[in-house]
Amino acid sequence: MPLKVTVWGENKHEKTNKDVQKIYPKGMHTVIADALNKDKEIKAITATLDQAEHGLTQKVLDDTDVLSWWGHAAHGDVKDEIVDRVQKRVLEGMGLIVLHSGHHSKIFKRLLGTSCDLTWREAGERERLWMCNPGHAIAQGIKGTYFELAEEEMYGEPFGIPNPDEVVFLSWFQGGEAFRSGVTYKRGAGKIFYFRPGHETYPTYHDANVQTVLRNAVKWAKPEGRFPAGCPNVPVEKALEKIVAKGASVH
Amino acid sequence: MPLKVTVWGENKHEKTNKDVQKIYPKGMHTVIADALNKDKEIKAITATLDQAEHGLTQKVLDDTDVLSWWGHAAHGDVKDEIVDRVQKRVLEGMGLIVLHSGHHSKIFKRLLGTSCDLTWREAGERERLWMCNPGHAIAQGIKGTYFELAEEEMYGEPFGIPNPDEVVFLSWFQGGEAFRSGVTYKRGAGKIFYFRPGHETYPTYHDANVQTVLRNAVKWAKPEGRFPAGCPNVPVEKALEKIVAKGASVH
Amino acid sequence: MPLKVTVWGENKHEKTNKDVQKIYPKGMHTVIADALNKDKEIKAITATLDQAEHGLTQKVLDDTDVLSWWGHAAHGDVKDEIVDRVQKRVLEGMGLIVLHSGHHSKIFKRLLGTSCDLTWREAGERERLWMCNPGHAIAQGIKGTYFELAEEEMYGEPFGIPNPDEVVFLSWFQGGEAFRSGVTYKRGAGKIFYFRPGHETYPTYHDANVQTVLRNAVKWAKPEGRFPAGCPNVPVEKALEKIVAKGASVH
Amino acid sequence: MPLKVTVWGENKHEKTNKDVQKIYPKGMHTVIADALNKDKEIKAITATLDQAEHGLTQKVLDDTDVLSWWGHAAHGDVKDEIVDRVQKRVLEGMGLIVLHSGHHSKIFKRLLGTSCDLTWREAGERERLWMCNPGHAIAQGIKGTYFELAEEEMYGEPFGIPNPDEVVFLSWFQGGEAFRSGVTYKRGAGKIFYFRPGHETYPTYHDANVQTVLRNAVKWAKPEGRFPAGCPNVPVEKALEKIVAKGASVH
Repeated sequence: MPLKVTVWGENKHEKTNKDVQKIYPKGMHTVIADALNKDKEIKAITATLDQAEHGLTQKVLDDTDVLSWWGHAAHGDVKDEIVDRVQKRVLEGMGLIVLHSGHHSKIFKRLLGTSCDLTWREAGERERLWMCNPGHAIAQGIKGTYFELAEEEMYGEPFGIPNPDEVVFLSWFQGGEAFRSGVTYKRGAGKIFYFRPGHETYPTYHDANVQTVLRNAVKWAKPEGRFPAGCPNVPVEKALEKIVAKGASVH
Repeated sequence: MPLKVTVWGENKHEKTNKDVQKIYPKGMHTVIADALNKDKEIKAITATLDQAEHGLTQKVLDDTDVLSWWGHAAHGDVKDEIVDRVQKRVLEGMGLIVLHSGHHSKIFKRLLGTSCDLTWREAGERERLWMCNPGHAIAQGIKGTYFELAEEEMYGEPFGIPNPDEVVFLSWFQGGEAFRSGVTYKRGAGKIFYFRPGHETYPTYHDANVQTVLRNAVKWAKPEGRFPAGCPNVPVEKALEKIVAKGASVH
Repeated sequence: MPLKVTVWGENKHEKTNKDVQKIYPKGMHTVIADALNKDKEIKAITATLDQAEHGLTQKVLDDTDVLSWWGHAAHGDVKDEIVDRVQKRVLEGMGLIVLHSGHHSKIFKRLLGTSCDLTWREAGERERLWMCNPGHAIAQGIKGTYFELAEEEMYGEPFGIPNPDEVVFLSWFQGGEAFRSGVTYKRGAGKIFYFRPGHETYPTYHDANVQTVLRNAVKWAKPEGRFPAGCPNVPVEKALEKIVAKGASVH
Repeated sequence: MPLKVTVWGENKHEKTNKDVQKIYPKGMHTVIADALNKDKEIKAITATLDQAEHGLTQKVLDDTDVLSWWGHAAHGDVKDEIVDRVQKRVLEGMGLIVLHSGHHSKIFKRLLGTSCDLTWREAGERERLWMCNPGHAIAQGIKGTYFELAEEEMYGEPFGIPNPDEVVFLSWFQGGEAFRSGVTYKRGAGKIFYFRPGHETYPTYHDANVQTVLRNAVKWAKPEGRFPAGCPNVPVEKALEKIVAKGASVH
C-alpha cells in the first residue's frame, strides 16, 4: 500500500503574483504533489489554506502518513485549532516535512519551541547544498556529495532552532552565507524534516534533485508506530510491585 | 555578583490543603528560595500566580538569570502573554528549572513542543534517583551514585518529551516503574533542566540532596550569552560577497 | 529480498558451562538466528569467535546488512584487525545490534569512544523494561508499555556511554536499580542499537518479547545508504567557485 | 585559581618548513599558549611530540583541566599508550580542544568512533565563520554573527563525525564549500570542542577572533565533576532492595 501524503500549500502568491504564477500556474502544492506521485510507493493529495478547515480535517489527517507544509505570507491565518490538530497527529506518529518559509509556520515553531528566526536575502543567487552524511536516507539518489540551485533566496545563520537530531544538508550561498538546510527532529513518534530551498519566485520544486529529496524525505518520515497521548493514573492496587499507600493526597 | 534567581510558585495547594500547609506553611516557593539562598553565589526571590502579571513582569524577567517553575493545579490560569514573555527570555539566554508537575506547565510544553504526558501514582512510595553521569555539574556534591526519597509520587514512562540533550538522573520506584528524572535541553541560548521530584504532599524540597541538586542546577543553567530574536533582511548591496540580484521578488 | 543478518556469538560459555548448555545447547547465536529467521523478511546466518577470522571475513561482512554481537568472556580474544573491519562496515552503513555483555566488546567501545562501564549483579532477579517511546520502530508489536523478564542479571547506572540518539527502553530491577536498556546511535551511515538483556544463564533469548525486539531492531538498523571513507583533496583548479591559490604549502 | 591548560603541539612543520617557521618561529603551541595566557583566569603550559611521553605524563595530565591538541604530519607517531591515557582523563572530566588537522588525530578518532574524514584544499582562500548560536559560551566576545580569515585551508563536507551535541560555527569558503567548523561533544564527564581553522601556513592563531574562541573554549570545557572508571559488582547481599539470588552463575 502506498504512503499517503498530504501536500499543504498556502497558495497565496500563486494567485496574486504574476511571476509566481508563471512558474507555478496550478500552485506550488500541485507541482510538489506531482513530483511525489512519480513514485508508485507514494500517493499524494493536496490541501490549501482557503479550504474548509484549511483542507486538514480530522479525517484527512487520520488518513495521512506524511504531511508536507509550505507557507509564507499567511502563517497568521492558519487557525490555532488546526495547528493543535496537526501537532497531535505528529506526536502520534505522522511524519512532517516543513519547506522553506515554513520555518516561520505556527506548526514548526510549535513543535520546536524556538523562534526559528534566520537572516534572508531575495536575490536569486546560487545555492549549493552539501551532504553531511551521504549515507542518510534523505540524500540517496543524488549524484556526488552536493547539488546546486542556480537561483534561490538566501537564508543565513543564526537559525533559531534546537540542535537537530541530524544535519543532512549544509548550504553555501554565493553572497557569502552558510546554513543548516536539511535538519531532522523527532517529536513524540513523529519524524520531522525541514528542507530549506523553495522560494516561490524561483523554479525550485521543478528541480530534479529537489524532487528526489522530497520523495526520500517522505519515505524517511513515514510512521513507525503510534505514541498515544494521555497521562494515565496507575492506582495503588494496580502497581506492578505490591505497595501500600502512604502520606497525604491532593487528588 | 550573585546569580539572580526567581522562584515561581503556583501557591495554590499551600492555601487550600492542610497536609500541604503543614509541610510548606509559607509555600513551596519559599522553601525552594531559602534552599537556594544558602549559597552566597545565588540570590533568589519569589513570584506567585496570584500576583499582578503572576509576579513575572518584564522588569523582573529582565533581571532574572534563572527562573524555577513549580505548578500543578492551575496551569491553565497562567496567562499566555506571560508564557510568551518567559519563552522569549529563555530563548535569549535565561535559564529555566522546571520542577515536578511543571511537566504539564504551559511554558515547558511550549519550549519542548510535545505532550509531556507521563503515568503517575500518588502513594508515598520510595524513589531512588540514580546518576547517569556522576561528572555532570548538576550531580555534584551528592555522595555516591544515587540518593533516595522515602515518600514520593510516582511518574512513569512513556514520558512524552523530545530526546534530552543529557539524562542526568534515572528514577527507580518501589511500585515498579523507571523514569528519566533529570533531563537537560537547550532552546535558543537558554538552558533548561527538568527535575522530577517535588510532590506537594511530601517534604521533598526540605531534603538536603534535592536542595543540592537545585543549587547545582541554577549554576549550570546560568546564561552564557545572548541570542537576540529577529529575522533581519540582508540587502543585496550589503552581501559580504558581491552579487547581482536576479529573478522576481515577492517582497 | 530479505535483510541479510549475521549473528555473531562468542560461543564460549555454551561449551564450558553446563547451566548455559542446558539453555542454549546449540549456542546462543543459534537461538538468536532462529528467532530472526521466523520473519521471512530476514535471512540470518551465524558466525563465531573460533572460526577463521572469527567468521567475519570481508566477504561475509560485505554481504551483511545488519550484524548482531554477543560476547562476554573473551572480548580480548577478538583480533583488532577484525574490529577495524567491522567498524569500517558500520561507518559505511551496516547496522549493528550489540547485546548485553557486548557493552564491553571492542567494537562497541570503539564506536562509542567511552568506557561503557556499568554496575552489575548476577542474581536472577526480575527486570521490567519500560518503553520511553511506544511509537519507536523497535518497540512495535509488544503489548502495552512494558515487558518483564523473570530472571536476569542486573546492569546499573552510571552507564559510561555518550548521550544516546534515543532511549527506547528503561529497565527497572527488583534489587533497586534503573538502567538505559535500549539505546540508539548513528556512526557514519551505520545505525547502532544496544539492547541490555541476555545473560547466558537465563533463557532470555527464548523470550517472545525479546525476540520481537531483536527482529524490530534488525529492520530498524538496515542500511539506508552508503558513506564511503576517504579524505579527498579538491585541487584548486577544480574548486566549484573560481579561486587563485595564495600562501605557502606543506603538501 | 586559574584553569590549568596544556597546549599540545606536534611541532614538526615548524622545524622543517621555512614558511611555517616565519609565522610560528617558536612553534604554534607557543602562540596558542600565549594567547590563552592573556587571560588571568587561564594558566597554559605546552607539551610536544618529541618530549618524553610526548610531554603528557600521568602527572601532567592529572594536573591539566583542559588539553588542546594540534597535530598534522605525525599522528601515527603518537604512542597508543599516551592516547589511552588522554582518553581516560577526558572520560574522567578533563576538557579537550581539538584543532584543525587534529580531526585525524588518534585521540579525536578514538573518542568519536568515526573516520573524521573530510575534503580539503590548500589554497589560502577566504573563510567566513558564522555563529549558529550567538548565545553559546564559545561565541562570546566576537562582534556580530561572523568573523573572517583572509587565508585558510578549506575543509569540506561530508565530515565523518557523529552528530554533534551542538554546532557552534559553520564555515563558508570562497571556493564553494560549507563546513561544520565548531562542534561540541561530551564523552564521559569530559567536554570536547573541535575548532576547524588553523592551517600551519597561515597566521590563523595570531588572529584576535580565533584567540577569543580558544579562550572561550577553554572556559567552556573546564571540568564540572568526575566520572570515575570501573565496572563494580553489587553483591546480592548489598542490593538496596532485599532480593534472593536465583538461577545459575558464570562468575
